Amino acid sequence: MIHVPAEPTGELSDAWRHCVGTGRIELALRRDYQDSLRLLQDEIGFRYIRGHGLLSDGMAVHRPYEWQGARHVHHSFTYVDQVVDAYLDLGIRPFLELGFMPEELASGKQTVFWWKSNVTPPRSHEEWADLVRATVAHLVDRYGLDEVRTWPIEVWNEPNLADFWENADEQAYHRLYEVTAAAVKEVDAGLQVGGPSLSPGADDWLGRFAEFAERRDVPVDFVSKHAYTSGPADHVPFGTHQTLAPAQDLLDQFATPRDLLKGTRLGGLPVHITEFNSSYRPDNPVHDTAFHAAYLAPVLAHGGDHVDSFSYWTFSDMFEEAGPPTALFHGGFGLLTHRQVKKPTYHLYAFMARMGPQLLARGDDHLVTRHTDGRVTVLAWAPVDATGETPGPERHRLKLSVPLKDAGEAFVRRSSVDEEHGNARTAWQRMGSPRSPRPHQLDVLHEAAEPGRRHLRLPVADGRVELDLTLSRHEVTLAEVSAVVDEAPAWADERRLLGGEPR
Amino acid sequence: MIHVPAEPTGELSDAWRHCVGTGRIELALRRDYQDSLRLLQDEIGFRYIRGHGLLSDGMAVHRPYEWQGARHVHHSFTYVDQVVDAYLDLGIRPFLELGFMPEELASGKQTVFWWKSNVTPPRSHEEWADLVRATVAHLVDRYGLDEVRTWPIEVWNEPNLADFWENADEQAYHRLYEVTAAAVKEVDAGLQVGGPSLSPGADDWLGRFAEFAERRDVPVDFVSKHAYTSGPADHVPFGTHQTLAPAQDLLDQFATPRDLLKGTRLGGLPVHITEFNSSYRPDNPVHDTAFHAAYLAPVLAHGGDHVDSFSYWTFSDMFEEAGPPTALFHGGFGLLTHRQVKKPTYHLYAFMARMGPQLLARGDDHLVTRHTDGRVTVLAWAPVDATGETPGPERHRLKLSVPLKDAGEAFVRRSSVDEEHGNARTAWQRMGSPRSPRPHQLDVLHEAAEPGRRHLRLPVADGRVELDLTLSRHEVTLAEVSAVVDEAPAWADERRLLGGEPR
Amino acid sequence: MIHVPAEPTGELSDAWRHCVGTGRIELALRRDYQDSLRLLQDEIGFRYIRGHGLLSDGMAVHRPYEWQGARHVHHSFTYVDQVVDAYLDLGIRPFLELGFMPEELASGKQTVFWWKSNVTPPRSHEEWADLVRATVAHLVDRYGLDEVRTWPIEVWNEPNLADFWENADEQAYHRLYEVTAAAVKEVDAGLQVGGPSLSPGADDWLGRFAEFAERRDVPVDFVSKHAYTSGPADHVPFGTHQTLAPAQDLLDQFATPRDLLKGTRLGGLPVHITEFNSSYRPDNPVHDTAFHAAYLAPVLAHGGDHVDSFSYWTFSDMFEEAGPPTALFHGGFGLLTHRQVKKPTYHLYAFMARMGPQLLARGDDHLVTRHTDGRVTVLAWAPVDATGETPGPERHRLKLSVPLKDAGEAFVRRSSVDEEHGNARTAWQRMGSPRSPRPHQLDVLHEAAEPGRRHLRLPVADGRVELDLTLSRHEVTLAEVSAVVDEAPAWADERRLLGGEPR
Amino acid sequence: MIHVPAEPTGELSDAWRHCVGTGRIELALRRDYQDSLRLLQDEIGFRYIRGHGLLSDGMAVHRPYEWQGARHVHHSFTYVDQVVDAYLDLGIRPFLELGFMPEELASGKQTVFWWKSNVTPPRSHEEWADLVRATVAHLVDRYGLDEVRTWPIEVWNEPNLADFWENADEQAYHRLYEVTAAAVKEVDAGLQVGGPSLSPGADDWLGRFAEFAERRDVPVDFVSKHAYTSGPADHVPFGTHQTLAPAQDLLDQFATPRDLLKGTRLGGLPVHITEFNSSYRPDNPVHDTAFHAAYLAPVLAHGGDHVDSFSYWTFSDMFEEAGPPTALFHGGFGLLTHRQVKKPTYHLYAFMARMGPQLLARGDDHLVTRHTDGRVTVLAWAPVDATGETPGPERHRLKLSVPLKDAGEAFVRRSSVDEEHGNARTAWQRMGSPRSPRPHQLDVLHEAAEPGRRHLRLPVADGRVELDLTLSRHEVTLAEVSAVVDEAPAWADERRLLGGEPR
Repeated sequence: MIHVPAEPTGELSDAWRHCVGTGRIELALRRDYQDSLRLLQDEIGFRYIRGHGLLSDGMAVHRPYEWQGARHVHHSFTYVDQVVDAYLDLGIRPFLELGFMPEELASGKQTVFWWKSNVTPPRSHEEWADLVRATVAHLVDRYGLDEVRTWPIEVWNEPNLADFWENADEQAYHRLYEVTAAAVKEVDAGLQVGGPSLSPGADDWLGRFAEFAERRDVPVDFVSKHAYTSGPADHVPFGTHQTLAPAQDLLDQFATPRDLLKGTRLGGLPVHITEFNSSYRPDNPVHDTAFHAAYLAPVLAHGGDHVDSFSYWTFSDMFEEAGPPTALFHGGFGLLTHRQVKKPTYHLYAFMARMGPQLLARGDDHLVTRHTDGRVTVLAWAPVDATGETPGPERHRLKLSVPLKDAGEAFVRRSSVDEEHGNARTAWQRMGSPRSPRPHQLDVLHEAAEPGRRHLRLPVADGRVELDLTLSRHEVTLAEVSAVVDEAPAWADERRLLGGEPR
Repeated sequence: MIHVPAEPTGELSDAWRHCVGTGRIELALRRDYQDSLRLLQDEIGFRYIRGHGLLSDGMAVHRPYEWQGARHVHHSFTYVDQVVDAYLDLGIRPFLELGFMPEELASGKQTVFWWKSNVTPPRSHEEWADLVRATVAHLVDRYGLDEVRTWPIEVWNEPNLADFWENADEQAYHRLYEVTAAAVKEVDAGLQVGGPSLSPGADDWLGRFAEFAERRDVPVDFVSKHAYTSGPADHVPFGTHQTLAPAQDLLDQFATPRDLLKGTRLGGLPVHITEFNSSYRPDNPVHDTAFHAAYLAPVLAHGGDHVDSFSYWTFSDMFEEAGPPTALFHGGFGLLTHRQVKKPTYHLYAFMARMGPQLLARGDDHLVTRHTDGRVTVLAWAPVDATGETPGPERHRLKLSVPLKDAGEAFVRRSSVDEEHGNARTAWQRMGSPRSPRPHQLDVLHEAAEPGRRHLRLPVADGRVELDLTLSRHEVTLAEVSAVVDEAPAWADERRLLGGEPR
Repeated sequence: MIHVPAEPTGELSDAWRHCVGTGRIELALRRDYQDSLRLLQDEIGFRYIRGHGLLSDGMAVHRPYEWQGARHVHHSFTYVDQVVDAYLDLGIRPFLELGFMPEELASGKQTVFWWKSNVTPPRSHEEWADLVRATVAHLVDRYGLDEVRTWPIEVWNEPNLADFWENADEQAYHRLYEVTAAAVKEVDAGLQVGGPSLSPGADDWLGRFAEFAERRDVPVDFVSKHAYTSGPADHVPFGTHQTLAPAQDLLDQFATPRDLLKGTRLGGLPVHITEFNSSYRPDNPVHDTAFHAAYLAPVLAHGGDHVDSFSYWTFSDMFEEAGPPTALFHGGFGLLTHRQVKKPTYHLYAFMARMGPQLLARGDDHLVTRHTDGRVTVLAWAPVDATGETPGPERHRLKLSVPLKDAGEAFVRRSSVDEEHGNARTAWQRMGSPRSPRPHQLDVLHEAAEPGRRHLRLPVADGRVELDLTLSRHEVTLAEVSAVVDEAPAWADERRLLGGEPR
Repeated sequence: MIHVPAEPTGELSDAWRHCVGTGRIELALRRDYQDSLRLLQDEIGFRYIRGHGLLSDGMAVHRPYEWQGARHVHHSFTYVDQVVDAYLDLGIRPFLELGFMPEELASGKQTVFWWKSNVTPPRSHEEWADLVRATVAHLVDRYGLDEVRTWPIEVWNEPNLADFWENADEQAYHRLYEVTAAAVKEVDAGLQVGGPSLSPGADDWLGRFAEFAERRDVPVDFVSKHAYTSGPADHVPFGTHQTLAPAQDLLDQFATPRDLLKGTRLGGLPVHITEFNSSYRPDNPVHDTAFHAAYLAPVLAHGGDHVDSFSYWTFSDMFEEAGPPTALFHGGFGLLTHRQVKKPTYHLYAFMARMGPQLLARGDDHLVTRHTDGRVTVLAWAPVDATGETPGPERHRLKLSVPLKDAGEAFVRRSSVDEEHGNARTAWQRMGSPRSPRPHQLDVLHEAAEPGRRHLRLPVADGRVELDLTLSRHEVTLAEVSAVVDEAPAWADERRLLGGEPR
């Protein structure tokens, strides 16, 4: 029996909900995307959203033209405005990522992704600076300086990988960063610019980035990197399998910037994990499983100890880096599939969003918080075996003594996802893995995606409720404990339902 | 093992969904009422709706005034139009009941219900006829003759009870009927008029009604009566307890008009049970229970054998005959409470709405149908003890061999309500019976009101699936059996999820 | 030419939008009512809403019952909660009016209105105090003390009229006030209670109310009265005609409480005009006219000089004091008819809602404000002849020199209501005054109810725009003046539209 | 005075609303697109929608992969299903156009449009046939054979232009047609396949297509071509100007297939103009003008004489062939701009949708119809000068004697678009041509886009109303004439509004 303290030990960090990832920004024009984001914001409520491609050709910002014999560039914000309007309307702000390169400004031909975005340095740094300046100035003009100052601006994505930045040329990135940061600050010195948006395994760039910033006196307002735990990709058609490191590995990756940058010019800056997930592949079925929710639960519970934000990559399967999905469940990053079927990891986030601000207890398999109205909320999760060597324990028992003020009895609302509940993929496989389910199949999937729910009434003794939680394999459960105020009248008597004698 | 035939034995009657009851028509102006009706029509889809009070003062139709020294009557349809517009917009048609009496047309002072509707004969039959004629003519003018010809028009409500018709004066009712029917037919001979809308235990009126119709050559297009199974009322504050007769008693009550009227002028006419329920009290908690759904299941399955319609009294707890409810669960007639919490009996209807048109089998505890696309749907229910002497069996097992064409495997979607599932009242009691639940409590209730759901995949052998259903106490369950078309690719292999070796 | 100053002379008071009136509170359960209120809140945005009948029988709060041989009273908030939930959901707060008397608590039989509310003193002041205490305590419990402290609580309505308070018994009112205020303050001393909610012509009560409050040391947090300008009622069936005093008379009525109470214990308290309109009759067609908007325009522009709020009686024609309306336009108080047709006075309010916070100028026929983004907004109205002896001037010209910063040209958006525009009643009369319009007629009315709109571009010289406004009979117009930022490209040239030669 | 006959001379063809064009099918995933289409379907109600790119890479249908050493092709319908689901949900059906070529199936590198779709013949006709067969079979499987048999299937787009079909190779097109038609008919012989989807000026292909079909016995169920009236393109940045032929030229283009194919195997087949407009450029401002509506009005009124459908190219400015628009008004084809601002031509269509089924009269400047309920509807338009040499007449007068049955007076609802009304572009230019308008500017534009509206009451003499319509420059007007049923009571008297003496 774990004794949960009656008084808070601190506040629950909300680094877990600070930001969420998205497929390329252009997808924000789509209805399915917006429907998913609306659902997400209603039930979870992220603050920022970050994705690639703001300056890629799909957004059609950089528009050279000829007039009276001379070349000019018009910067066009038709789609940028539609996207940002939609975000703000949905209660989420952009975490801007400046990239990739417009074809007509690129120095080379290399592209990345199914949607073929150019990842070479600008042919003209001056024209790039114009593009950056015009974009940021337009946003300030349309949305107001106070608003845009709250939007972090990240320079490029994973320049340490040759796939994302030609030759992974560090010097070229530093130059790009310097030009870009200057252009941003020209618009307003109070805007926040940062980088270097490193992929995992490139922490050695951090020290050199700090040194460069110091040497060149370049503004850096935050530091960003990414974290993933997957091993080498083993491909099948339209899919990938990978080994995973234990979830603790994510926390370890989160922790390095603060450690490594201590004492440098960048020490003490906000650290944003601008992407994280288990696998970095958008076609790894592990993303769709109950295992995944249980695997990430401790990361959400503890991640805020190390960073200012860690952004789940990504909120929706509306994502096309490896091409549009060929089946409803296909191992996409999304918390939601196309057509808004919730995955177990969606519920992990939705459960977190129902936790209170006061932190009462935290452990390897649980997190306990209290709301200001006195309700106590317990998130618990089953341990997993990330090696896959064992299926993980079939049952996991957790006994908690939970404090509850001013109550004679407690009402417990328990919501769970596991292999069988809140698990549309299981139902989908049973119905034959239909690639593009019919409407009545989607009804079943939407039903099957809802958590299992139980309600019970427990005694309160000495201001405490004993919660005896048995978790099934890969279960993540939320137990919300509130005081019962009994309004049943004196004459209520179930024995009389069919005309029986009163007690 | 019950062997369900592979070919249909007939069509499933839809008498069960032909009509549903409502609290006084004026309530249709309310938003909660319309929200409930919208939900109902989406998930169940009744064809007609019938309630009291079309001509009562709340609808403000009969409006005497003075002008240039003379008395006139203006007939005003401001609210009638708003109500009927709303019904048609929601895809449901009015089953008109003409009553009760406007105060200024009444011959006496007697009223019924908390909302005090006058139930005395008209002071002037001529002015009553004007009122009826004007009302029906207005409806024809606004909605079209073809449309209004499809709306049955019933004369008064339960004239055999002194509470609803002064002195239960049979002669006076016959006179009212004759005058009313004539007024209706003056508007158009093709309109359907009927009665006598008897309460249970008054079948002796039927023969005399037939004789009167014959003697006076009065038009009758359908015959109507009501059916309830409850015994004497045992009151507590804001509540009532009663014994119930077995459900078969309802079917017996349904059956009498066709029997008794055989050979009379009214023989062979459509018979509408314009109200039925277990208890006739709007404050009997039995209406809110899982018992109630299991109790009524055989009535819905078999009722169509006896009548053209039987109309559940009523769709919503927005109902005020005994005064507005003092608690969310209060024993109201509604399939839905205020604020759209679904009761178990709601799900019985929603399950019926998912049955197919082809009747494959029917028994004491089951009903099996097939859809035109081949899906087979099984409705099953646990036996109940209506005496309350025993709680009813804790487990009830039903084994069915169900035919399924062109399938190697079957997907079964099972939805259940019982004491624990699809049963918001149970959760409501556990949380302390809050009379007017807070928003977050309503969230819990809406969740708890959803059926329990399971999905499984079963083998098909020789074109048959073996369904082994174990029902818990008071369970009503729907099992929808469809053929699996397996689209899982050759390379799908769960063992590889965490990078394991392929099979 | 009126020269509007370039710098603000003060802030525009928002007393005009502080509160709005409603038909009896029970009507808030209706859908048409909520649809109208939603529209109103979107386009106007009132802060509070006040209506009769919170404790009348339709709300079903006071519920005596017998249990174990004794009489008890249950206080039931089923409908109160539905109403207040709806208000808060629509972004408006209740301005509570405590009244009228539940039948079973009344000392007499006298009722008021078609809906027959009892207006006699309580049989038991103790039971009345219980009712008040229970109601207020319930609201505090459900909505929170911080919230309910912002809701003014007014004791009864127009006790100086024998129709609303038996015998207009002043002593009895003082007693009721004292008991009620004490009950409110027992719940929380920070709640605001006030009265005496006088009808016009009863200012003599004010001094005696102040004296009583002082003598008995009774808490009074605000003072309330009503204001109307109509003369004696001349009735036709379902209608009334009356003369009107000039609009200035309303402002004079507003002004008396501050004057009369100066130096008393109630001096300096907030003054709320909890009802005002031209005619006090809900069936006077003047409410539906363009005249009415022009008549009230100066009242809205100047009223805030005299009082803390003045509440238009009422927002919707969903109102039943004289019975439900018998025609769409019937002279109801509403800013909106049933089915959300906007009247000219609706637009007067909607125009006011588009004024800026900085007051630049104000006159007999105009009000000029500026928004923080620099837009200048002009409300102008034609003078009216309230005697009806002349139709009012056919044309009224107003020339304004309006300051506009940082602009070379100005864009003017002009919106108008007059006899022909924004005037659905005119169209309704032309189509034959259909009492209950068909859907396609409603389409026409909704169209006809929209203001006339014009747009123009004017030069700015020396930071000023010359607005030359010609108003038609009974016109109220809104001119919104903003700076043009010209983004038309160099090559834009209308002459080339059909392939013509460029300039 | 034109005397409109009292009896119909025929039925109004609905060829004008049979089909509408769209930007590439992939855009149907976007929210702005769906919002626009919803509005369109509510107010106009097209039956079919046709656009390019069903098989282009953006729809991601053709997906080659390797498995166990061999190349396979998976056909994926993730986006196809989302698009078609959305269309059907919006009440519109696809008019399928098979094209363009997936990169991995293409024989060459040539692409068309900003979105770079490959327009070369298939590398393998067998693999192309597989793609067609799989696509059509999937649609039949998902949506049902009865449904898909109603969807025309057109082979490719404008193969006579080298931009759309490599080298405009006629033989290659015939081969593609033959292979495609065979693949379609393999799925079901009842499906409708057709072509050759010619651009203007290529009627010589028609005879050879007929000859080829006969010679090779190839199935052809309908014949399709396009019609435009614009001359050579004169470019400015992000825009084009062109001369236009008179509108009659469109009707002449419509007429040729029936003429030219008479007597051939294709004679008598349905003829679909699968694209038409004035200019074929998506950046010609003429599309946005009132001129354009008046120019096309006679085409809509008369087009049905010549063809079975003529499909306006396109319903929305969400269109990217020349790149995403750089300003709200940019000369796009759309009836609606981005963000649903209605253009004058939108209203021409919306007016047509309010015409009745009975054709009473038709002339150079008018079309008169009657509804089954007796309402008479007049569409009238001002003559235009398509040469641009004159601005067109400033005033155009049209006097009609219109029959109206059973009426003493008529109500006329007149709706107009011209240079000043229903013309958001005019307002947009006045406000400075903001490329990406702010929310409050969009409010103005949405207002300015609504037609001018007037209502009047006219006498009916001898069953006739005299309509004296004066049209302003480029006006298109709709006058809806209905009988007045006067319900105004005897006592209605405007003179009494302010208490005056009755008449």
